[in-house]
Amino acid sequence: MEDKHMLMIPGPTPVPESVLLAMAKHPIGHRSGAFSEIMAEVTENLQWLFQTKNDVFCLAASGTGAMEAGLINFLDSSDKVLVGTNGKFGDRWAIICETYGMDVERIEAPWGEALDPEAFKAKLAADTNKEIKGVVVTHSETSTGVLNDLETISGYVKDHGALMIVDSVTSMGSCNVPVDEWGLDVVATGSQKGFMLPPGLGFVSVSDKAWAAYENAKIPRFYLDLKSAKKSLAKNTTPFTPPVNLIFGLQTALQMMKREGLENIFARHARLTEATRAAIKALGLKTFAPDSNASKAVTSVDPSPIGAEDIRKAMRSQFDIALAGGQDDYKGKIFRIGHLGFVHERDVITAIAALEATLQSLGHTDFEAGAGLKAAASVFQQS
Amino acid sequence: MEDKHMLMIPGPTPVPESVLLAMAKHPIGHRSGAFSEIMAEVTENLQWLFQTKNDVFCLAASGTGAMEAGLINFLDSSDKVLVGTNGKFGDRWAIICETYGMDVERIEAPWGEALDPEAFKAKLAADTNKEIKGVVVTHSETSTGVLNDLETISGYVKDHGALMIVDSVTSMGSCNVPVDEWGLDVVATGSQKGFMLPPGLGFVSVSDKAWAAYENAKIPRFYLDLKSAKKSLAKNTTPFTPPVNLIFGLQTALQMMKREGLENIFARHARLTEATRAAIKALGLKTFAPDSNASKAVTSVDPSPIGAEDIRKAMRSQFDIALAGGQDDYKGKIFRIGHLGFVHERDVITAIAALEATLQSLGHTDFEAGAGLKAAASVFQQS
Repeated sequence: MEDKHMLMIPGPTPVPESVLLAMAKHPIGHRSGAFSEIMAEVTENLQWLFQTKNDVFCLAASGTGAMEAGLINFLDSSDKVLVGTNGKFGDRWAIICETYGMDVERIEAPWGEALDPEAFKAKLAADTNKEIKGVVVTHSETSTGVLNDLETISGYVKDHGALMIVDSVTSMGSCNVPVDEWGLDVVATGSQKGFMLPPGLGFVSVSDKAWAAYENAKIPRFYLDLKSAKKSLAKNTTPFTPPVNLIFGLQTALQMMKREGLENIFARHARLTEATRAAIKALGLKTFAPDSNASKAVTSVDPSPIGAEDIRKAMRSQFDIALAGGQDDYKGKIFRIGHLGFVHERDVITAIAALEATLQSLGHTDFEAGAGLKAAASVFQQS
Repeated sequence: MEDKHMLMIPGPTPVPESVLLAMAKHPIGHRSGAFSEIMAEVTENLQWLFQTKNDVFCLAASGTGAMEAGLINFLDSSDKVLVGTNGKFGDRWAIICETYGMDVERIEAPWGEALDPEAFKAKLAADTNKEIKGVVVTHSETSTGVLNDLETISGYVKDHGALMIVDSVTSMGSCNVPVDEWGLDVVATGSQKGFMLPPGLGFVSVSDKAWAAYENAKIPRFYLDLKSAKKSLAKNTTPFTPPVNLIFGLQTALQMMKREGLENIFARHARLTEATRAAIKALGLKTFAPDSNASKAVTSVDPSPIGAEDIRKAMRSQFDIALAGGQDDYKGKIFRIGHLGFVHERDVITAIAALEATLQSLGHTDFEAGAGLKAAASVFQQS
């Protein structure tokens, strides 16, 4: 039936009615005092969410656009850069750096495994001439559901002195990303993830250390130049026309997040992650990422010998629940359950119930009836 | 009172309720079949609006982002480029070209006057070695309300062989821009103008000739690279997450535009422009742009000796009508009335009535009572 669709993918994520209605308000002029007041409020609330005193910019761009801005404003074309790659997005940031002529060294881990912080430590320790100017890490690798150990890696980077540049696209708002405490110089994310918003806005925070590096970063840029964004933000405005209606939605979403509180938001995502993983295992399926490094935004599932696409199709056709598929080499091999943003216990229970019914309809019943639900409920009971 | 605000600025422009409500629908996955169907429909309808068989791309970016993509994908850093500059936006495109190291020659006209097509003809004729690779023209210069003679200029450019690159930000949807007939290689615009949409989407069309030039354009780019957009569009998708809800709005807005029809849309904007200009003159104020080159999107008014900002403030405080101010050197000297997109006769009559009352309240009554309204009504009567 129409309008019954349920998003359980890692972006776009579900959007609250109040945010959708805020976006449906008539636009106002972006050079008006009324709009500047909104920009001031959302900037302050973004700083709260990022746990930072750094500048945080809203760009009319996807998360990739925000991440590219974070790379090309603070690194130069000849700079040596370490890029952690253990999934599609790590690969993308390496490709962007190479596109701009940077000297990229990849620190790799297989898809589904976490980056080894000690590999970063060794490379940085060996760099006695301080040739490495930046280290790029994808905190929550959306393509695999792996949460990399950003806290440890950023500590090593801080000791070395390079810029710590972070893709927090699916970590910001789903788990603790204390930008100032961890010394994260550049942190980029997008609206359709933990923000309970549709896509169309990118966010990027910039430290004083990154601003110092800006002076030596000569890659040409105009639309993605962040100094012009900084000049404008000082007057609570933007250099180019911002997506006014998405900013209305952002204002409402950030107010909702503040009412819930950071600790509660993180605890909710941790609870949903644990429940999802417990249920998956109880249903005899394998979680793709290790428990020790599980993204709080998305859980990847290896259902072999059952076909991942068979499960996705059945979930879609019978229950109108959208799950994400695998990417690149993992297309057809894994599926991904998003549980970030405007998602709570009822949504996870619903997805697990539908998954149990789907497995049954596909003829896979190697689990006790209700095992998934029982496992999820146990997690909720304890937490 | 609340929620009574009326936008009469050249962007953001008014948005129909049906478009606002389309944007308030819950997002769907951007990699779904349902979303690809929408992309196929909006792409076809954008080609209808642009009157072209060329590719037309939707970018998550402002009009400036779309224009930058149109410049850096098809011109190289050493290329010689002619840029027409007779306002803020022409200046901006020259600055972008210079930012990327291009050899820019400006063809200038004073603010408020049109570019001289013969100046382009002379420069192009003198370029016997075909060093000029691109010519950049702002069709409707939003900062002044001047409509440049793109048809004539593009004819000269076609004869020469350089790429014709056009800012049609406030011309697309407000007047005839027949991309194929005029041979416009790259045409960029934004959603918050003639499209009856909020800001957040940029559009850019690309000709086969521009795609040939793409092969020699080596400026690094990733987010704004249009070849990846082309590869994705062949599958009715986008390389990065698109602003799904703005695309919902775009779908509805283009359907509305198709029902109205191109000729009717252009005639409506011509009628509103003529009525606005007639009323302004009848009120004893001066139109800033000449009748022969009047933008169909925005009318700039020089109210001296009355202060432009006094008028804007009074219009805002008494009638809650937003007018735009002058930009750069013309700040405080002119004001601008936007009449593009979801604007019709009633809106113009309303603005003129409010302007008459405002002039009266400011003590300026050098006109017969009702003169503005009478002049506007005469235009509507004739057309």
